[in-house]
Amino acid sequence: MISVNPSEARAVRQRARDGSLTGPTAGLATGFVQVNLVVLPEAQANGFLRFCQANPKPCPLIAVSEPGQRTCELLGNDLDIARDVPAYHVYRHGELSGTAGDVSDLWRDDLVTFALGCSFSFEHALMQNGVAVRHIDESRNVPMFKTSIPLQAAGGFSGHMVVSMRPFPAAQAIRAIQITTRFPLAHGAPVHFGDPALIGIRDLMNPDYGDSVSIYSNETPVFWACGVTPQQVLMDAGVPFAITHSPGHMLVTDIPESQVTLL
Amino acid sequence: MISVNPSEARAVRQRARDGSLTGPTAGLATGFVQVNLVVLPEAQANGFLRFCQANPKPCPLIAVSEPGQRTCELLGNDLDIARDVPAYHVYRHGELSGTAGDVSDLWRDDLVTFALGCSFSFEHALMQNGVAVRHIDESRNVPMFKTSIPLQAAGGFSGHMVVSMRPFPAAQAIRAIQITTRFPLAHGAPVHFGDPALIGIRDLMNPDYGDSVSIYSNETPVFWACGVTPQQVLMDAGVPFAITHSPGHMLVTDIPESQVTLL
Repeated sequence: MISVNPSEARAVRQRARDGSLTGPTAGLATGFVQVNLVVLPEAQANGFLRFCQANPKPCPLIAVSEPGQRTCELLGNDLDIARDVPAYHVYRHGELSGTAGDVSDLWRDDLVTFALGCSFSFEHALMQNGVAVRHIDESRNVPMFKTSIPLQAAGGFSGHMVVSMRPFPAAQAIRAIQITTRFPLAHGAPVHFGDPALIGIRDLMNPDYGDSVSIYSNETPVFWACGVTPQQVLMDAGVPFAITHSPGHMLVTDIPESQVTLL
Repeated sequence: MISVNPSEARAVRQRARDGSLTGPTAGLATGFVQVNLVVLPEAQANGFLRFCQANPKPCPLIAVSEPGQRTCELLGNDLDIARDVPAYHVYRHGELSGTAGDVSDLWRDDLVTFALGCSFSFEHALMQNGVAVRHIDESRNVPMFKTSIPLQAAGGFSGHMVVSMRPFPAAQAIRAIQITTRFPLAHGAPVHFGDPALIGIRDLMNPDYGDSVSIYSNETPVFWACGVTPQQVLMDAGVPFAITHSPGHMLVTDIPESQVTLL
Protein backbone atom coordinates (compact mmCIF):
# COMPACT_ATOMS: atom_id res chain seq x y z
CA MET A 1 0.00 0.00 0.00
CA ILE A 2 1.25 3.46 -0.92
CA SER A 3 0.30 5.84 1.84
CA VAL A 4 -1.45 8.91 0.53
CA ASN A 5 -1.95 12.23 2.22
CA PRO A 6 -5.17 14.10 1.39
CA SER A 7 -3.46 17.40 2.21
CA GLU A 8 -1.61 17.05 -1.11
CA ALA A 9 -4.90 16.93 -3.01
CA ARG A 10 -6.22 19.88 -1.04
CA ALA A 11 -3.02 21.82 -1.75
CA VAL A 12 -3.50 21.37 -5.51
CA ARG A 13 -7.10 22.60 -5.26
CA GLN A 14 -5.94 25.58 -3.17
CA ARG A 15 -3.36 26.53 -5.81
CA ALA A 16 -6.04 26.32 -8.52
CA ARG A 17 -8.33 28.41 -6.33
CA ASP A 18 -5.82 31.20 -5.68
CA GLY A 19 -4.74 31.27 -9.34
CA SER A 20 -1.18 30.03 -8.86
CA LEU A 21 -1.99 26.79 -10.77
CA THR A 22 -3.43 27.29 -14.25
CA GLY A 23 -1.87 24.32 -16.07
CA PRO A 24 -2.68 20.60 -16.47
CA THR A 25 -3.01 18.41 -13.37
CA ALA A 26 -1.34 15.24 -14.72
CA GLY A 27 1.19 13.98 -12.17
CA LEU A 28 -0.08 16.22 -9.34
CA ALA A 29 -1.20 14.75 -5.98
CA THR A 30 -0.25 11.28 -7.17
CA GLY A 31 -2.49 8.56 -5.73
CA PHE A 32 -5.65 10.66 -5.66
CA VAL A 33 -8.51 10.35 -8.14
CA GLN A 34 -8.86 13.19 -10.62
CA VAL A 35 -12.23 13.69 -12.27
CA ASN A 36 -13.83 15.04 -15.43
CA LEU A 37 -16.29 17.79 -14.50
CA VAL A 38 -19.64 18.50 -16.18
CA VAL A 39 -21.90 21.22 -14.74
CA LEU A 40 -25.44 21.56 -16.12
CA PRO A 41 -28.67 23.35 -15.24
CA GLU A 42 -31.16 21.03 -13.55
CA ALA A 43 -33.38 21.17 -16.65
CA GLN A 44 -30.77 19.14 -18.55
CA ALA A 45 -29.12 17.44 -15.55
CA ASN A 46 -31.81 14.86 -14.85
CA GLY A 47 -31.68 13.55 -18.42
CA PHE A 48 -27.89 13.67 -18.43
CA LEU A 49 -27.80 11.57 -15.25
CA ARG A 50 -29.90 8.91 -16.96
CA PHE A 51 -27.59 9.12 -20.00
CA CYS A 52 -24.48 8.55 -17.83
CA GLN A 53 -26.06 5.61 -16.09
CA ALA A 54 -26.91 4.08 -19.47
CA ASN A 55 -23.33 4.57 -20.74
CA PRO A 56 -21.02 3.78 -17.82
CA LYS A 57 -17.87 3.11 -19.88
CA PRO A 58 -17.53 6.63 -21.35
CA CYS A 59 -19.42 8.29 -18.44
CA PRO A 60 -18.43 6.57 -15.16
CA LEU A 61 -20.25 8.49 -12.43
CA ILE A 62 -18.19 9.09 -9.29
CA ALA A 63 -20.41 11.78 -7.76
CA VAL A 64 -23.41 14.00 -8.56
CA SER A 65 -23.97 17.14 -6.49
CA GLU A 66 -27.23 18.56 -5.19
CA PRO A 67 -28.55 21.48 -7.33
CA GLY A 68 -26.80 24.75 -6.56
CA GLN A 69 -24.16 23.19 -4.30
CA ARG A 70 -20.55 24.20 -4.95
CA THR A 71 -19.31 21.62 -2.46
CA CYS A 72 -19.42 17.85 -2.74
CA GLU A 73 -18.52 15.79 0.32
CA LEU A 74 -18.12 12.63 -1.77
CA LEU A 75 -15.21 14.30 -3.58
CA GLY A 76 -13.43 16.02 -0.70
CA ASN A 77 -13.44 18.47 2.14
CA ASP A 78 -12.84 22.18 1.59
CA LEU A 79 -13.68 21.78 -2.08
CA ASP A 80 -15.16 24.53 -4.28
CA ILE A 81 -16.45 23.26 -7.61
CA ALA A 82 -16.50 26.78 -9.07
CA ARG A 83 -12.87 27.62 -8.25
CA ASP A 84 -10.76 24.47 -7.69
CA VAL A 85 -10.22 23.47 -11.32
CA PRO A 86 -7.19 25.18 -12.94
CA ALA A 87 -9.11 25.94 -16.16
CA TYR A 88 -12.81 25.72 -17.09
CA HIS A 89 -14.62 25.62 -20.42
CA VAL A 90 -17.92 27.45 -20.69
CA TYR A 91 -20.39 26.31 -23.36
CA ARG A 92 -23.44 28.19 -24.56
CA HIS A 93 -25.91 26.72 -27.06
CA GLY A 94 -23.58 23.85 -27.83
CA GLU A 95 -20.52 25.96 -28.53
CA LEU A 96 -17.45 26.86 -26.54
CA SER A 97 -18.02 30.47 -25.51
CA GLY A 98 -14.99 30.96 -23.32
CA THR A 99 -12.43 29.67 -20.84
CA ALA A 100 -11.98 30.79 -17.24
CA GLY A 101 -9.92 30.04 -14.16
CA ASP A 102 -12.88 30.71 -11.88
CA VAL A 103 -16.61 30.33 -12.64
CA SER A 104 -17.97 31.78 -9.36
CA ASP A 105 -19.60 34.64 -11.24
CA LEU A 106 -21.44 32.21 -13.52
CA TRP A 107 -22.76 30.06 -10.69
CA ARG A 108 -26.52 29.52 -10.45
CA ASP A 109 -28.83 27.87 -7.93
CA ASP A 110 -29.94 25.27 -10.46
CA LEU A 111 -26.48 23.98 -11.46
CA VAL A 112 -25.78 20.27 -10.92
CA THR A 113 -22.22 18.95 -10.99
CA PHE A 114 -21.23 15.56 -12.42
CA ALA A 115 -17.83 14.13 -11.48
CA LEU A 116 -16.79 11.42 -13.95
CA GLY A 117 -13.82 9.08 -13.60
CA CYS A 118 -10.80 9.75 -15.81
CA SER A 119 -8.06 7.62 -17.32
CA PHE A 120 -5.33 9.18 -15.15
CA SER A 121 -6.16 6.57 -12.49
CA PHE A 122 -5.53 3.58 -14.73
CA GLU A 123 -2.52 5.16 -16.46
CA HIS A 124 -0.89 5.50 -13.06
CA ALA A 125 -1.61 1.81 -12.41
CA LEU A 126 -0.26 0.80 -15.83
CA MET A 127 3.04 2.55 -15.17
CA GLN A 128 3.28 1.12 -11.64
CA ASN A 129 2.96 -2.32 -13.27
CA GLY A 130 5.72 -1.64 -15.79
CA VAL A 131 3.42 -0.99 -18.75
CA ALA A 132 4.77 2.11 -20.51
CA VAL A 133 2.20 4.63 -21.77
CA ARG A 134 3.32 6.12 -25.07
CA HIS A 135 1.79 9.62 -24.91
CA ILE A 136 3.27 10.11 -21.45
CA ASP A 137 6.70 8.90 -22.64
CA GLU A 138 6.41 11.31 -25.59
CA SER A 139 5.11 14.19 -23.40
CA ARG A 140 1.95 14.56 -25.47
CA ASN A 141 -1.77 14.55 -24.80
CA VAL A 142 -3.44 11.17 -25.39
CA PRO A 143 -4.81 10.81 -28.97
CA MET A 144 -8.63 10.74 -29.04
CA PHE A 145 -10.97 9.79 -31.88
CA LYS A 146 -14.66 10.01 -32.73
CA THR A 147 -15.96 6.52 -33.57
CA SER A 148 -18.96 4.77 -35.08
CA ILE A 149 -19.70 3.01 -31.76
CA PRO A 150 -23.27 4.05 -30.91
CA LEU A 151 -24.11 5.22 -27.40
CA GLN A 152 -27.27 4.13 -25.61
CA ALA A 153 -29.76 6.97 -26.08
CA ALA A 154 -31.20 8.15 -22.76
CA GLY A 155 -32.52 11.34 -21.14
CA GLY A 156 -32.69 13.10 -24.48
CA PHE A 157 -29.02 12.55 -25.26
CA SER A 158 -27.43 10.28 -27.86
CA GLY A 159 -24.46 10.05 -30.19
CA HIS A 160 -21.27 8.07 -30.70
CA MET A 161 -18.41 7.17 -28.40
CA VAL A 162 -15.15 9.09 -28.33
CA VAL A 163 -12.17 6.83 -27.54
CA SER A 164 -8.60 7.34 -26.44
CA MET A 165 -5.84 5.22 -28.02
CA ARG A 166 -2.69 3.75 -26.50
CA PRO A 167 -0.41 1.43 -28.56
CA PHE A 168 1.23 -1.65 -26.99
CA PRO A 169 2.96 -4.88 -28.02
CA ALA A 170 0.39 -7.70 -27.63
CA ALA A 171 1.72 -9.07 -24.32
CA GLN A 172 1.61 -5.55 -22.79
CA ALA A 173 -1.87 -5.00 -24.26
CA ILE A 174 -3.07 -8.16 -22.52
CA ARG A 175 -1.58 -6.88 -19.25
CA ALA A 176 -3.19 -3.46 -19.85
CA ILE A 177 -6.59 -5.12 -20.34
CA GLN A 178 -6.17 -6.95 -17.04
CA ILE A 179 -5.07 -3.83 -15.16
CA THR A 180 -7.72 -1.46 -16.55
CA THR A 181 -10.44 -4.04 -15.81
CA ARG A 182 -9.74 -3.18 -12.17
CA PHE A 183 -10.84 0.44 -12.78
CA PRO A 184 -14.50 0.42 -13.81
CA LEU A 185 -14.81 4.02 -12.54
CA ALA A 186 -11.94 5.09 -14.84
CA HIS A 187 -13.46 3.72 -18.09
CA GLY A 188 -12.48 0.13 -17.27
CA ALA A 189 -11.33 -2.35 -19.90
CA PRO A 190 -10.82 -1.26 -23.51
CA VAL A 191 -13.72 -1.27 -25.96
CA HIS A 192 -11.65 -2.27 -29.03
CA PHE A 193 -8.17 -3.09 -30.27
CA GLY A 194 -6.61 -3.66 -33.68
CA ASP A 195 -8.15 -2.45 -36.95
CA PRO A 196 -9.31 1.15 -36.36
CA ALA A 197 -11.61 1.04 -39.42
CA LEU A 198 -13.86 -1.45 -37.60
CA ILE A 199 -14.92 1.37 -35.24
CA GLY A 200 -14.99 4.08 -37.89
CA ILE A 201 -11.53 5.61 -37.37
CA ARG A 202 -9.82 6.53 -40.65
CA ASP A 203 -6.35 7.67 -39.66
CA LEU A 204 -4.63 6.97 -36.34
CA MET A 205 -2.14 9.75 -37.07
CA ASN A 206 -4.93 12.37 -37.22
CA PRO A 207 -6.77 12.29 -33.90
CA ASP A 208 -9.94 14.36 -33.45
CA TYR A 209 -8.66 15.57 -30.05
CA GLY A 210 -5.23 15.46 -28.42
CA ASP A 211 -1.96 14.61 -30.16
CA SER A 212 -0.77 11.77 -32.37
CA VAL A 213 1.80 9.36 -30.91
CA SER A 214 4.30 6.87 -32.40
CA ILE A 215 2.98 3.37 -33.15
CA TYR A 216 5.66 0.75 -33.85
CA SER A 217 5.27 -2.18 -36.25
CA ASN A 218 5.00 -4.78 -33.46
CA GLU A 219 2.27 -2.80 -31.69
CA THR A 220 -1.52 -2.89 -31.68
CA PRO A 221 -3.62 0.21 -31.02
CA VAL A 222 -5.88 -0.31 -28.01
CA PHE A 223 -8.96 1.88 -27.56
CA TRP A 224 -10.66 2.94 -24.33
CA ALA A 225 -13.94 4.81 -23.86
CA CYS A 226 -13.02 8.45 -23.26
CA GLY A 227 -14.33 11.18 -20.96
CA VAL A 228 -14.54 13.57 -23.91
CA THR A 229 -17.61 11.57 -24.98
CA PRO A 230 -20.05 13.41 -22.65
CA GLN A 231 -18.69 16.82 -23.70
CA GLN A 232 -19.18 15.87 -27.37
CA VAL A 233 -22.71 14.64 -26.66
CA LEU A 234 -23.65 17.84 -24.80
CA MET A 235 -22.28 20.01 -27.61
CA ASP A 236 -24.09 17.93 -30.25
CA ALA A 237 -27.31 18.34 -28.23
CA GLY A 238 -26.81 22.13 -28.22
CA VAL A 239 -27.43 22.46 -24.47
CA PRO A 240 -28.04 26.13 -23.61
CA PHE A 241 -25.43 26.29 -20.83
CA ALA A 242 -22.70 24.00 -19.50
CA ILE A 243 -19.41 24.29 -17.68
CA THR A 244 -16.71 21.63 -17.92
CA HIS A 245 -13.07 21.36 -16.98
CA SER A 246 -10.63 22.25 -19.76
CA PRO A 247 -9.10 18.98 -21.12
CA GLY A 248 -6.22 17.84 -18.92
CA HIS A 249 -7.09 20.38 -16.22
CA MET A 250 -8.97 18.07 -13.88
CA LEU A 251 -10.55 18.43 -10.45
CA VAL A 252 -8.28 16.69 -7.92
CA THR A 253 -10.32 14.87 -5.27
CA ASP A 254 -9.53 13.51 -1.80
CA ILE A 255 -10.50 9.98 -2.99
CA PRO A 256 -7.52 7.61 -2.85
CA GLU A 257 -7.08 5.64 -6.11
CA SER A 258 -7.24 2.47 -4.02
CA GLN A 259 -10.89 3.29 -3.30
CA VAL A 260 -11.87 3.06 -6.99
CA THR A 261 -9.74 -0.05 -7.66
CA LEU A 262 -11.28 -3.53 -7.78
CA LEU A 263 -9.21 -6.31 -6.15
CA MET B 1 -23.62 -21.13 -8.19
CA ILE B 2 -24.16 -24.18 -10.37
CA SER B 3 -24.50 -27.21 -8.13
CA VAL B 4 -22.21 -30.02 -9.23
CA ASN B 5 -22.41 -33.67 -8.29
CA PRO B 6 -19.08 -35.53 -8.00
CA SER B 7 -20.84 -38.78 -8.83
CA GLU B 8 -20.99 -37.57 -12.46
CA ALA B 9 -17.20 -37.26 -12.59
CA ARG B 10 -16.77 -40.66 -10.98
CA ALA B 11 -19.24 -42.18 -13.48
CA VAL B 12 -17.11 -40.91 -16.40
CA ARG B 13 -13.97 -42.43 -14.85
CA GLN B 14 -15.85 -45.72 -14.27
CA ARG B 15 -16.89 -45.85 -17.93
CA ALA B 16 -13.29 -45.25 -19.00
CA ARG B 17 -12.14 -47.92 -16.55
CA ASP B 18 -14.55 -50.59 -17.78
CA GLY B 19 -13.85 -49.77 -21.44
CA SER B 20 -17.28 -48.43 -22.34
CA LEU B 21 -15.84 -44.90 -22.87
CA THR B 22 -12.95 -44.70 -25.36
CA GLY B 23 -13.64 -41.29 -26.94
CA PRO B 24 -12.90 -37.65 -26.04
CA THR B 25 -14.10 -36.22 -22.72
CA ALA B 26 -15.13 -32.73 -23.89
CA GLY B 27 -18.58 -31.92 -22.55
CA LEU B 28 -18.66 -34.82 -20.06
CA ALA B 29 -19.23 -34.22 -16.32
CA THR B 30 -19.69 -30.51 -16.97
CA GLY B 31 -18.48 -28.33 -14.09
CA PHE B 32 -15.58 -30.61 -13.08
CA VAL B 33 -11.93 -29.93 -13.86
CA GLN B 34 -10.37 -32.17 -16.52
CA VAL B 35 -6.60 -32.50 -16.53
CA ASN B 36 -3.69 -33.22 -18.84
CA LEU B 37 -1.81 -36.27 -17.56
CA VAL B 38 1.97 -36.79 -17.67
CA VAL B 39 3.44 -39.93 -16.04
CA LEU B 40 7.24 -40.18 -15.74
CA PRO B 41 9.81 -42.34 -13.94
CA GLU B 42 11.14 -40.63 -10.81
CA ALA B 43 14.53 -40.21 -12.52
CA GLN B 44 12.98 -37.62 -14.87
CA ALA B 45 10.09 -36.55 -12.64
CA ASN B 46 12.04 -34.36 -10.24
CA GLY B 47 13.50 -32.29 -13.04
CA PHE B 48 10.12 -32.13 -14.79
CA LEU B 49 8.52 -30.81 -11.61
CA ARG B 50 11.05 -27.98 -11.53
CA PHE B 51 10.37 -27.34 -15.23
CA CYS B 52 6.60 -27.08 -14.62
CA GLN B 53 7.09 -24.71 -11.72
CA ALA B 54 9.29 -22.51 -13.92
CA ASN B 55 6.71 -22.47 -16.73
CA PRO B 56 3.30 -22.19 -15.07
CA LYS B 57 1.40 -20.86 -18.10
CA PRO B 58 1.91 -23.93 -20.33
CA CYS B 59 2.35 -26.33 -17.36
CA PRO B 60 -0.10 -25.34 -14.58
CA LEU B 61 0.36 -27.95 -11.86
CA ILE B 62 -2.85 -29.09 -10.21
CA ALA B 63 -1.44 -32.20 -8.50
CA VAL B 64 1.68 -34.39 -8.37
CA SER B 65 1.39 -37.95 -7.07
CA GLU B 66 3.76 -39.85 -4.79
CA PRO B 67 6.01 -42.27 -6.73
CA GLY B 68 4.26 -45.52 -7.63
CA GLN B 69 0.81 -44.33 -6.49
CA ARG B 70 -2.06 -44.94 -8.90
CA THR B 71 -4.40 -42.92 -6.70
CA CYS B 72 -4.36 -39.18 -6.02
CA GLU B 73 -6.62 -37.81 -3.32
CA LEU B 74 -6.18 -34.25 -4.58
CA LEU B 75 -7.88 -35.26 -7.84
CA GLY B 76 -10.67 -37.47 -6.55
CA ASN B 77 -11.85 -40.50 -4.65
CA ASP B 78 -11.99 -43.95 -6.25
CA LEU B 79 -9.59 -42.78 -8.95
CA ASP B 80 -7.15 -45.05 -10.82
CA ILE B 81 -4.54 -43.15 -12.81
CA ALA B 82 -3.70 -46.22 -14.88
CA ARG B 83 -7.24 -47.02 -16.00
CA ASP B 84 -9.51 -43.93 -15.73
CA VAL B 85 -8.39 -42.10 -18.88
CA PRO B 86 -10.29 -43.20 -22.02
CA ALA B 87 -7.09 -43.36 -24.12
CA TYR B 88 -3.38 -43.15 -23.20
CA HIS B 89 -0.26 -42.41 -25.26
CA VAL B 90 2.88 -44.38 -24.41
CA TYR B 91 6.23 -42.82 -25.34
CA ARG B 92 9.59 -44.60 -25.46
CA HIS B 93 12.85 -42.75 -26.17
CA GLY B 94 10.99 -39.66 -27.22
CA GLU B 95 8.68 -41.32 -29.69
CA LEU B 96 5.07 -42.44 -29.52
CA SER B 97 5.29 -46.22 -29.23
CA GLY B 98 1.60 -47.00 -28.81
CA THR B 99 -1.83 -46.13 -27.53
CA ALA B 100 -3.83 -47.99 -24.89
CA GLY B 101 -7.09 -47.84 -23.00
CA ASP B 102 -5.46 -49.20 -19.83
CA VAL B 103 -1.80 -48.91 -18.73
CA SER B 104 -2.02 -51.14 -15.61
CA ASP B 105 0.40 -53.62 -17.17
CA LEU B 106 2.98 -50.85 -17.76
CA TRP B 107 2.78 -49.48 -14.22
CA ARG B 108 5.98 -49.27 -12.19
CA ASP B 109 6.82 -48.40 -8.60
CA ASP B 110 8.84 -45.36 -9.70
CA LEU B 111 6.17 -43.65 -11.81
CA VAL B 112 5.14 -40.11 -10.79
CA THR B 113 1.93 -38.56 -12.14
CA PHE B 114 1.55 -34.89 -13.03
CA ALA B 115 -1.96 -33.48 -13.43
CA LEU B 116 -1.89 -30.23 -15.40
CA GLY B 117 -4.80 -27.84 -15.90
CA CYS B 118 -6.46 -27.78 -19.31
CA SER B 119 -8.31 -25.21 -21.37
CA PHE B 120 -11.65 -27.03 -21.09
CA SER B 121 -12.23 -25.14 -17.81
CA PHE B 122 -11.90 -21.69 -19.35
CA GLU B 123 -13.73 -22.65 -22.57
CA HIS B 124 -16.70 -23.64 -20.45
CA ALA B 125 -16.52 -20.25 -18.72
CA LEU B 126 -16.22 -18.41 -22.05
CA MET B 127 -19.39 -20.05 -23.39
CA GLN B 128 -21.25 -19.45 -20.12
CA ASN B 129 -20.39 -15.76 -20.59
CA GLY B 130 -21.68 -15.67 -24.16
CA VAL B 131 -18.25 -15.79 -25.83
CA ALA B 132 -18.51 -18.32 -28.67
CA VAL B 133 -15.53 -20.65 -29.16
CA ARG B 134 -14.97 -21.30 -32.85
CA HIS B 135 -13.52 -24.82 -32.84
CA ILE B 136 -16.38 -25.98 -30.62
CA ASP B 137 -18.93 -24.33 -32.93
CA GLU B 138 -17.23 -26.03 -35.89
CA SER B 139 -16.92 -29.40 -34.06
CA ARG B 140 -13.14 -29.49 -34.52
CA ASN B 141 -10.14 -29.87 -32.25
CA VAL B 142 -8.55 -26.55 -31.24
CA PRO B 143 -5.73 -25.46 -33.61
CA MET B 144 -2.31 -25.61 -31.93
CA PHE B 145 1.03 -24.20 -33.10
CA LYS B 146 4.69 -24.46 -32.23
CA THR B 147 6.06 -20.97 -31.55
CA SER B 148 9.34 -19.11 -31.10
CA ILE B 149 8.41 -18.19 -27.49
CA PRO B 150 11.25 -19.65 -25.38
CA LEU B 151 10.46 -21.64 -22.27
CA GLN B 152 12.41 -21.21 -19.04
CA ALA B 153 14.97 -24.02 -18.99
CA ALA B 154 14.78 -26.03 -15.75
CA GLY B 155 15.37 -29.57 -14.50
CA GLY B 156 17.11 -30.55 -17.71
CA PHE B 157 14.18 -29.58 -19.91
CA SER B 158 13.85 -26.68 -22.34
CA GLY B 159 12.22 -25.74 -25.62
CA HIS B 160 9.55 -23.47 -27.04
CA MET B 161 5.93 -22.92 -26.15
CA VAL B 162 3.09 -24.59 -28.01
CA VAL B 163 -0.02 -22.38 -28.13
CA SER B 164 -3.68 -22.90 -28.92
CA MET B 165 -5.50 -20.32 -31.03
CA ARG B 166 -9.06 -19.04 -30.83
CA PRO B 167 -10.28 -16.18 -33.10
CA PHE B 168 -12.60 -13.45 -31.80
CA PRO B 169 -13.85 -9.99 -32.73
CA ALA B 170 -11.89 -7.49 -30.58
CA ALA B 171 -14.63 -6.83 -28.02
CA GLN B 172 -15.03 -10.58 -27.44
CA ALA B 173 -11.25 -11.00 -27.27
CA ILE B 174 -11.14 -8.38 -24.50
CA ARG B 175 -13.88 -10.28 -22.64
CA ALA B 176 -12.00 -13.56 -23.21
CA ILE B 177 -8.83 -12.04 -21.72
CA GLN B 178 -10.80 -10.98 -18.65
CA ILE B 179 -12.47 -14.37 -18.23
CA THR B 180 -9.36 -16.52 -18.77
CA THR B 181 -7.39 -14.35 -16.32
CA ARG B 182 -9.63 -15.95 -13.70
CA PHE B 183 -8.20 -19.42 -14.55
CA PRO B 184 -4.46 -19.39 -13.77
CA LEU B 185 -4.61 -23.20 -13.38
CA ALA B 186 -6.06 -23.55 -16.89
CA HIS B 187 -3.30 -21.57 -18.71
CA GLY B 188 -4.72 -18.21 -17.60
CA ALA B 189 -4.66 -15.11 -19.82
CA PRO B 190 -3.43 -15.31 -23.42
CA VAL B 191 0.27 -14.93 -24.22
CA HIS B 192 -0.25 -13.16 -27.56
CA PHE B 193 -2.81 -11.87 -30.03
CA GLY B 194 -2.69 -10.45 -33.53
CA ASP B 195 0.22 -10.98 -35.93
CA PRO B 196 1.18 -14.69 -35.71
CA ALA B 197 4.61 -14.03 -37.30
CA LEU B 198 5.65 -12.15 -34.15
CA ILE B 199 5.67 -15.50 -32.27
CA GLY B 200 7.06 -17.55 -35.15
CA ILE B 201 3.82 -18.92 -36.63
CA ARG B 202 3.82 -18.97 -40.44
CA ASP B 203 0.34 -20.10 -41.41
CA LEU B 204 -2.73 -20.04 -39.17
CA MET B 205 -4.48 -22.43 -41.56
CA ASN B 206 -1.81 -25.12 -41.04
CA PRO B 207 -1.67 -25.91 -37.32
CA ASP B 208 1.03 -28.24 -35.97
CA TYR B 209 -1.60 -30.09 -33.91
CA GLY B 210 -5.40 -30.14 -34.03
CA ASP B 211 -7.53 -28.72 -36.82
CA SER B 212 -7.74 -25.39 -38.60
CA VAL B 213 -10.80 -23.22 -37.96
CA SER B 214 -12.45 -20.33 -39.79
CA ILE B 215 -11.13 -16.83 -39.03
CA TYR B 216 -13.31 -13.97 -40.26
CA SER B 217 -12.04 -10.59 -41.48
CA ASN B 218 -13.19 -8.71 -38.37
CA GLU B 219 -11.45 -11.17 -36.05
CA THR B 220 -8.09 -11.34 -34.29
CA PRO B 221 -6.35 -14.64 -33.50
CA VAL B 222 -5.74 -14.93 -29.75
CA PHE B 223 -3.09 -17.35 -28.47
CA TRP B 224 -3.00 -19.23 -25.16
CA ALA B 225 -0.22 -21.37 -23.68
CA CYS B 226 -1.13 -24.99 -24.45
CA GLY B 227 -0.90 -28.22 -22.50
CA VAL B 228 0.73 -29.90 -25.50
CA THR B 229 3.87 -27.94 -24.57
CA PRO B 230 5.07 -30.41 -21.88
CA GLN B 231 4.48 -33.40 -24.20
CA GLN B 232 6.51 -31.68 -26.93
CA VAL B 233 9.29 -30.88 -24.44
CA LEU B 234 9.42 -34.48 -23.16
CA MET B 235 9.58 -35.86 -26.71
CA ASP B 236 12.29 -33.36 -27.68
CA ALA B 237 14.27 -34.45 -24.60
CA GLY B 238 13.96 -38.09 -25.67
CA VAL B 239 12.84 -39.29 -22.24
CA PRO B 240 13.13 -43.10 -22.08
CA PHE B 241 9.57 -43.70 -20.91
CA ALA B 242 6.45 -41.61 -20.43
CA ILE B 243 2.70 -42.07 -20.42
CA THR B 244 0.28 -39.24 -21.21
CA HIS B 245 -3.40 -38.96 -22.00
CA SER B 246 -4.26 -39.03 -25.69
CA PRO B 247 -5.15 -35.45 -26.78
CA GLY B 248 -8.77 -34.65 -25.94
CA HIS B 249 -9.10 -37.79 -23.80
CA MET B 250 -8.58 -36.20 -20.39
CA LEU B 251 -8.71 -37.41 -16.81
CA VAL B 252 -11.96 -36.15 -15.26
CA THR B 253 -11.43 -35.10 -11.62
CA ASP B 254 -13.77 -34.50 -8.68
CA ILE B 255 -12.52 -30.88 -8.45
CA PRO B 256 -15.34 -28.40 -9.15
CA GLU B 257 -14.35 -25.74 -11.68
CA SER B 258 -15.29 -23.13 -9.09
CA GLN B 259 -12.33 -24.32 -7.01
CA VAL B 260 -9.80 -23.31 -9.71
CA THR B 261 -11.54 -20.02 -10.52
CA LEU B 262 -10.28 -16.70 -9.15
CA LEU B 263 -12.99 -14.24 -8.05
